[in-house]
Amino acid sequence: MKKLFFPLLIVTFVLSGIAHYAHWNAVFQFVVAAISVIFVAGFLGRATEAVAHYAGQRLGGFLNATFGNAAELIIAIFLVKEGLFDMVKASITGSIIGNLLLVLGASALTGGIKFKEQKFNIHLAGQNASLMLLAVIALFIPAVFVKSEHLSDHDTMSISITVAGVLIVAYIGWLVYSMITHKSLLEDNEETQPAHGEEAVWSKGKSILYLVLATVMVAFVSEWLVGTLEVFTEKFHLSELFVGAFIVAIIGNAAEHSAAVMLALKNKIGAAVEIAVGSSLQIALFVAPVLIFISLFFGQHMNILFSTIELAAIAVAVLIATSISRDGATTWYEGKLLLLVYIVLGVAFYFV
Amino acid sequence: MKKLFFPLLIVTFVLSGIAHYAHWNAVFQFVVAAISVIFVAGFLGRATEAVAHYAGQRLGGFLNATFGNAAELIIAIFLVKEGLFDMVKASITGSIIGNLLLVLGASALTGGIKFKEQKFNIHLAGQNASLMLLAVIALFIPAVFVKSEHLSDHDTMSISITVAGVLIVAYIGWLVYSMITHKSLLEDNEETQPAHGEEAVWSKGKSILYLVLATVMVAFVSEWLVGTLEVFTEKFHLSELFVGAFIVAIIGNAAEHSAAVMLALKNKIGAAVEIAVGSSLQIALFVAPVLIFISLFFGQHMNILFSTIELAAIAVAVLIATSISRDGATTWYEGKLLLLVYIVLGVAFYFV
Amino acid sequence: MKKLFFPLLIVTFVLSGIAHYAHWNAVFQFVVAAISVIFVAGFLGRATEAVAHYAGQRLGGFLNATFGNAAELIIAIFLVKEGLFDMVKASITGSIIGNLLLVLGASALTGGIKFKEQKFNIHLAGQNASLMLLAVIALFIPAVFVKSEHLSDHDTMSISITVAGVLIVAYIGWLVYSMITHKSLLEDNEETQPAHGEEAVWSKGKSILYLVLATVMVAFVSEWLVGTLEVFTEKFHLSELFVGAFIVAIIGNAAEHSAAVMLALKNKIGAAVEIAVGSSLQIALFVAPVLIFISLFFGQHMNILFSTIELAAIAVAVLIATSISRDGATTWYEGKLLLLVYIVLGVAFYFV
Repeated sequence: MKKLFFPLLIVTFVLSGIAHYAHWNAVFQFVVAAISVIFVAGFLGRATEAVAHYAGQRLGGFLNATFGNAAELIIAIFLVKEGLFDMVKASITGSIIGNLLLVLGASALTGGIKFKEQKFNIHLAGQNASLMLLAVIALFIPAVFVKSEHLSDHDTMSISITVAGVLIVAYIGWLVYSMITHKSLLEDNEETQPAHGEEAVWSKGKSILYLVLATVMVAFVSEWLVGTLEVFTEKFHLSELFVGAFIVAIIGNAAEHSAAVMLALKNKIGAAVEIAVGSSLQIALFVAPVLIFISLFFGQHMNILFSTIELAAIAVAVLIATSISRDGATTWYEGKLLLLVYIVLGVAFYFV
Repeated sequence: MKKLFFPLLIVTFVLSGIAHYAHWNAVFQFVVAAISVIFVAGFLGRATEAVAHYAGQRLGGFLNATFGNAAELIIAIFLVKEGLFDMVKASITGSIIGNLLLVLGASALTGGIKFKEQKFNIHLAGQNASLMLLAVIALFIPAVFVKSEHLSDHDTMSISITVAGVLIVAYIGWLVYSMITHKSLLEDNEETQPAHGEEAVWSKGKSILYLVLATVMVAFVSEWLVGTLEVFTEKFHLSELFVGAFIVAIIGNAAEHSAAVMLALKNKIGAAVEIAVGSSLQIALFVAPVLIFISLFFGQHMNILFSTIELAAIAVAVLIATSISRDGATTWYEGKLLLLVYIVLGVAFYFV
Repeated sequence: MKKLFFPLLIVTFVLSGIAHYAHWNAVFQFVVAAISVIFVAGFLGRATEAVAHYAGQRLGGFLNATFGNAAELIIAIFLVKEGLFDMVKASITGSIIGNLLLVLGASALTGGIKFKEQKFNIHLAGQNASLMLLAVIALFIPAVFVKSEHLSDHDTMSISITVAGVLIVAYIGWLVYSMITHKSLLEDNEETQPAHGEEAVWSKGKSILYLVLATVMVAFVSEWLVGTLEVFTEKFHLSELFVGAFIVAIIGNAAEHSAAVMLALKNKIGAAVEIAVGSSLQIALFVAPVLIFISLFFGQHMNILFSTIELAAIAVAVLIATSISRDGATTWYEGKLLLLVYIVLGVAFYFV
C-alpha cells in the first residue's frame, strides 16, 4: 500500500489536471478531482507531520495553516477582483466555522474515540479564545454601529479600513508573541523532548520541500474541484451562500481537515488544535482584512460588514469552540458537540 | 417530628386530592395543595438523598432530575395537544431559568452560608457549560435565521425538526458519555469512597421505590396546584407569559428545589448542581425537542422558535450560571447573584 | 526631580484653578490643566501605593477606585439635574469601557513588557467576571424587553428602579463578601506577608490623608479640564457621544490610569486589576443605579435604558476583559488586545 501511494498521488493529480484544462465531462472532472484530493490531502498530512517532527507541534501546525490558507487567499483575490463580495464573505464565514466546528470537531471525535482524554497547552487555549473573541468583536462592532446608526457608505468604508488595520496589527503582534516572546509558554510539553523511538521518515529539508509541494498541489486540485461545483449547484438548486459557506469551505479545508485528524489519531491534539483554530484565526485576522485593502487596490470598495446570519454563525462557532477548548483538553463528546453545531448551521444555511 | 412526617404527608396528599377532584373552593384547594407540596417535596428530597447514598451524587442527581421533569413533560404534552404552543414555550423557558437561577442560586446561597466554599467536579462544570451553550445555540440559530431571512413556515418546520433531532442526539450522546465512557472523570471525589459514619436510612430497593413514589406524588400535587392558579391569575391581572414562566415553573420545580437545597446544606453541592443544571439540560435537550415531535404526532406543528425575550432570558441565565459554576466551586455570594438575575428577569416578565 | 515634585504639583494646580475661575483663554486653560493633571495623577498614584503598602493591594485598589469615581459621580449628578440623560449614559459607558480596555490594557501592556507574565488572584478574576456579567445583564434585559415588547414609560421606569435596586443590593453584597466573609480567598498571595526590604515612604495616617487630598485635587482638575473641552468639540466637529464616552472618560480616569500603570510596573498587577475592574464595577453597580434614584429626587425620570451601540460597547468590553483576565495572569499581548478593542470602539463612536 505504501509503495503505491506516490504513483497513485501523481496519476490522479495529473489526470485531474488534464480533465480540468481539457474541459472533459463535468461529472468525470468532479469524480477524478475528488479522488485526487484524498491523495494530495494525505500527502500534505504526511508532510506536515514530518515537519512537526522537526519543528515542534505548534510551528508545524502554523505552517500547515498558512499553506492551507494560501489557496483560499488566492481564490478570494480573484473573487474580489470581479466584485463578488458576498461570495467572498460567505467563503470567509464558511472557512472560519468549518475550521472551528468541522475540522476541530472531527479531530476531537476521532482522537477521542482512540484516547480517553487528549490534553494540550492550556495557555494556548486561553490565548486562542481571546484572539477569536477579538475577531468576532472586530466583525460585530462595525455591523452594529452601521445598522443602528445608519452610517454613510464613506464612514462605513473608513470604519472598515481602520478595523482591518487593527486586525492585521493584532495578527502581527500574535506572531511576535507566540513565536518569539512567549514561545515556551505556549508550547506543548511533549515538544520539548524528542519523541521516544519515533524515527523521522524524511530529512528536514525534504520534509519542508514536500510540505510546500503538497500545499501547492492541494491548492490546484481544490480549485479544479470548486470549478465543477457550479454544475451541481444548479442541478440541486443550492443557494450561493450555502455553496460558498459549506461546499467550498469543506473542500478548501480538506487539507487542514485530513492533517488535523491524522495528528489527533497520533494523540498530537495540540497540533490539530493549532491547525483548526490557527487557520480560523489566520482567516479572520489576516486573510479577511488583507482582502479589504486588496479591494481598494483594485478600485473596488469591499467593506467589512457581514450579514446578520454570517455574524451569528461565526459568533456561535467561536463561543462553542472556546467553551470546549478552554480547559486544554478534548474528548469524543466535545468533538461530537462541535459537529452537531456545524450540522445545525448547515441546515439553517441550506434553507436561506 | 420525624414520626409525624409520614402521617402528615399522606393526610395532606389525600386531602389535596379530594379537594381537587370534588371541586372544592379554589382558595381552599390552593392552600391545601401548597401545604401538601411541602411534604411531598420533602419526601422526594429524602428519597433522592437515600438513592444518592447508594448510587453516588451524580447518578442520584440525574435520577432526581429525570423524575422531576417527568411531571413537566406530561403537563406540556397536554398543552401541546390543545395547541397552546406559547404557554409550552413559556414554561420551558421558565423551567430552564428557574433551575439555573432559582434552584442553583438558592442551593449555593444556603449551602454557602453554612460552608465557606463548596467544591464540585470541575470537569462536570465545563461539560455542563458546553452543553448549555449548545442548547442556547440550537434555540438561537433558528430564530435568527427565520427572522432575518423571512423563511417560509415549511422551511421553519424543517429547521425545527432537524434542530430537535440534533438536540436529542446530543442528549443521548451525553448519557453515554457521562454514564459510561467518562463516568469516573465526572464524578465527585467524595463519591468514590463511602461517606464516613453515615448510615443508610432505607434499603437500596426501598430508596428507589420511594423515589419513584415521591416523584409521582409531586407530579400529582403540582398539577392540582397549577389547576388552582387560573383563579389567581385573573384576580391579580397577571399575564400568561409571567404565570407560565414563573409561577408554574417555581411550583413545578419545587421538588428539585427542596432536594437541591437539602443536599447543599449537607455540603453535597455536586449533587445539587447536577439536579439544577441537569434538569435544565434535560428540559432543553430532551423535553423541548421531544415536544416538537409529539406535536407532529398530534397533527399540530409546533416549531422551535422562541420569542426574543424568551431567548434573552435563557441566554442570560446560561451565561451567568456557567460563569459562576465554571471554577467548580460556589459561595453564598454567587448564589445571591443568581437569585438577583432571577429577580431582574421576573420583574421584566411581569411588566410584559 | 523628587524634590521638585511637590512644588510643581502645587504651582500647576493653583495656576490651573486661577485660569479656570478667572476665565482665562480657553486654550491656555486646557494646556495648564493638562499639565496639572499629570502631577495630581502622579500624586494620587504615590498615595495609593503608600496606602496599599499598609492595607494590602486589594483594599488599596478599592480605595483608589472609590475616590477615583467620586469625581465622576459628582459631575454626573450635575448632568442629571439638568436633564442631560444621554450625556450621563455616554459617560457611564465611556467610564466602563475606558477602565476595562484602556486602563487595564495599558497596565497589562506596560507591566507585561517589563515582566514576562504577571499573576493575580484567580478567584478574584472569576468573581469579577461574574459581577461584570451581572452588570451587563442588568443593563441588557430592560433594553431588550422594552424594545421588543413596546412597554409604556411607566413600566419602563418601574423596571429601571427595580433593576437599579438589584444592582445596589449586589454591590453591597459584594463589599460584604470581598471585604469580610471571603477576604482571604480573594487576596493576592504576596499581601499576606510584608514586602521584603521595601520601606514605607509615608506613615499610615499621612498616606490616607494624602490619598483623600490627591483624589480631591484630581476631581477639581478633571472638572476644569472637562470645562475647556466644549471649545474643542465645536472646533473639531466631534459628536457629544464621542466626547462623553471617550474624551471625558479618558480624562476622568486619568487618576486610575496612572495609578494602575505604576502598580503594574512594580509587578503589582493584582492592584492594577482591582483599580481597573473595580472602578468599572463601581460605575456599573453603584454609580449608575444611584443616579437613577437621584434623578427621581430631582423630579426627573432617568430610566436605565442604554442605546444599542452603548450596550454593544459595554458587552464587548466585558467579554474581552473577562476572557483575558479569567486565567489570573496577564501578558503584554493581552494588554495590546484590550487597547486594540478600545481603538475599534473609539473609531466606531467617532463616526456616529
